[in-house]
Amino acid sequence: MSIMLSEIVEQPSALERTLTAEAEKYRRLEQLLGSREIDLVLLVARGSSDNAALFGRYLIETTTGIPVSLAAPSVHTLYGAKLDLKRALVVGVSQSGEGSDINLVLESARSSGAMTLGITNESDSTMAGIVDETLLIHAGRERSVAATKTYTGQMLHFYMLARALGGRDLGIERIPELTDHALLLLEEIRSLVERYLFMDNCVVVGRGLNYGNAYELALKLMETCYVVAERFSSADFLHGPLALVERRFPVILFAPTGQTLPGSRGLLDSLKDLHADCLAITNDPDIAVRASRSLRMSPEIDEFLSPIPFIVPAQMFACMLSEAKGLDPDSPRSLSKVTSTI
Amino acid sequence: MSIMLSEIVEQPSALERTLTAEAEKYRRLEQLLGSREIDLVLLVARGSSDNAALFGRYLIETTTGIPVSLAAPSVHTLYGAKLDLKRALVVGVSQSGEGSDINLVLESARSSGAMTLGITNESDSTMAGIVDETLLIHAGRERSVAATKTYTGQMLHFYMLARALGGRDLGIERIPELTDHALLLLEEIRSLVERYLFMDNCVVVGRGLNYGNAYELALKLMETCYVVAERFSSADFLHGPLALVERRFPVILFAPTGQTLPGSRGLLDSLKDLHADCLAITNDPDIAVRASRSLRMSPEIDEFLSPIPFIVPAQMFACMLSEAKGLDPDSPRSLSKVTSTI
Repeated sequence: MSIMLSEIVEQPSALERTLTAEAEKYRRLEQLLGSREIDLVLLVARGSSDNAALFGRYLIETTTGIPVSLAAPSVHTLYGAKLDLKRALVVGVSQSGEGSDINLVLESARSSGAMTLGITNESDSTMAGIVDETLLIHAGRERSVAATKTYTGQMLHFYMLARALGGRDLGIERIPELTDHALLLLEEIRSLVERYLFMDNCVVVGRGLNYGNAYELALKLMETCYVVAERFSSADFLHGPLALVERRFPVILFAPTGQTLPGSRGLLDSLKDLHADCLAITNDPDIAVRASRSLRMSPEIDEFLSPIPFIVPAQMFACMLSEAKGLDPDSPRSLSKVTSTI
Repeated sequence: MSIMLSEIVEQPSALERTLTAEAEKYRRLEQLLGSREIDLVLLVARGSSDNAALFGRYLIETTTGIPVSLAAPSVHTLYGAKLDLKRALVVGVSQSGEGSDINLVLESARSSGAMTLGITNESDSTMAGIVDETLLIHAGRERSVAATKTYTGQMLHFYMLARALGGRDLGIERIPELTDHALLLLEEIRSLVERYLFMDNCVVVGRGLNYGNAYELALKLMETCYVVAERFSSADFLHGPLALVERRFPVILFAPTGQTLPGSRGLLDSLKDLHADCLAITNDPDIAVRASRSLRMSPEIDEFLSPIPFIVPAQMFACMLSEAKGLDPDSPRSLSKVTSTI
């Protein structure tokens, strides 16, 4: 078994550990956050962590009403701008905690009076030493270059953070169990990937809470399968990129039931008219039947809790497609685990 | 001549008209903005307008220090979230002014006490009727489906808006002349595109103030040439997608002199090690020589003023590559000029 697949499989227990181990910290944090006026949440990340942050953005805005901005690190690191962040909560996200540009933004934000948090898998990292509070992912060391268990660990922290900011109970205790259930698709995916063996490029579409997942699956396909994978929201896809689609053009669609479902159905209609090849990760029976192929998720998953369980079959798909293509998902060419950019 | 090319050529005069016609409005606006406490600028757009907004984000943050967020329209339209925007300046950007989701966000923001602006090419549009102030692009009706003169018109408005917010003179009066000069590359590009006739996919890279241009060229290549074109910042590119690059993999790089130049040089080194094929749009002599091919911009253009002139050869490249491929840049398949999404 590849390291990547073994880490995918570890996710339910890693999520459970993080939920339990961090609970007390969030109770403290909730009090602390309640005592401050926060009018902006700034998320700072790159790579998979930035995809988790993209999810966090939708989650925090929809559950707390606080505007969220995904930081452009080069504004700080290259142009030396000093943003007015005195009423902001600034959250760095980095698996290793060693992303130098992320840490520079956190230092700059802290010096300008912002409260800073760091979501990381490494308690002894540079990031942990900078921020006011470290939100630790308890996933154990991640050895695969392609992040999986730290990505879902970061997402889980965004659920806990949103709860601390908004004070609502969001039912997130069910996430480990729903994630575990998604692992049952393993053998189905192992045979499904054969169909995509000669896929050179594709588009991955998600929306709202699953928009970050579209970015994440595309990144996994680029890293481990060398597939040129575009990523769009279903709305943005209609503003231009739809022109790409010709007969048998592959599109992978995250389509949970919920608020985004009518848009997913409309997009699937357009794609079928264009004879595209559509793989749906869905728990909607209608979409499952009408897509070219589908990976069926539990009907018990509501949209709000869908992003973590829904990325699991996508991770398995990328990992097993890589192996089917004769590649090694654990050794993406040209990459190393910690990427340092300024 | 295609409509798209004729509209590309109109840009210097359209920019000049907009600068002159809107000057008085911005003088008023500067006073108005100075009297309010603005702690967040929220930009709301889709498609090419969103790419202009991505540029606007870097520009406003670096010149004014006010944090900027690019809105996620579905937070408002699908999830019905009500963000706290009372101290925000909310700016809608839409060529037609008829993007229904953009207009919904503007209405919601206005009702929550935000000041709203609309950057549009259509003075009688729905957007113009919603916002507190319409910032008009004087480009004349845009007939090509692929936006060009309204994209640069939107960027120009961001320069004027940043000046009004930050009070600094930014030398933007030179932009029409620098843009006109870029049109001289037309014949060179007409022969250059032959080399890319069978390019099916590519990556476009830009950073900082030219990051939006990477998105915009990628969108133009998708719309008019059906090339699967990825877009990245040079920093994000190193966090995973670099694995895509194999011998002769095509990468198009915006590389102006200035703060982003060391990063561009570093990326070019990595790409050359991987034997990628790199087309640089640059005014740095060293990068021009070391790239596989280059489009040389005037050395007089400093980075701050580079985004508008630098997109011009990119627009011409997409337009003429489309024609060389036997396609019609004025009739992208599956698209219409006004895209309405919720």
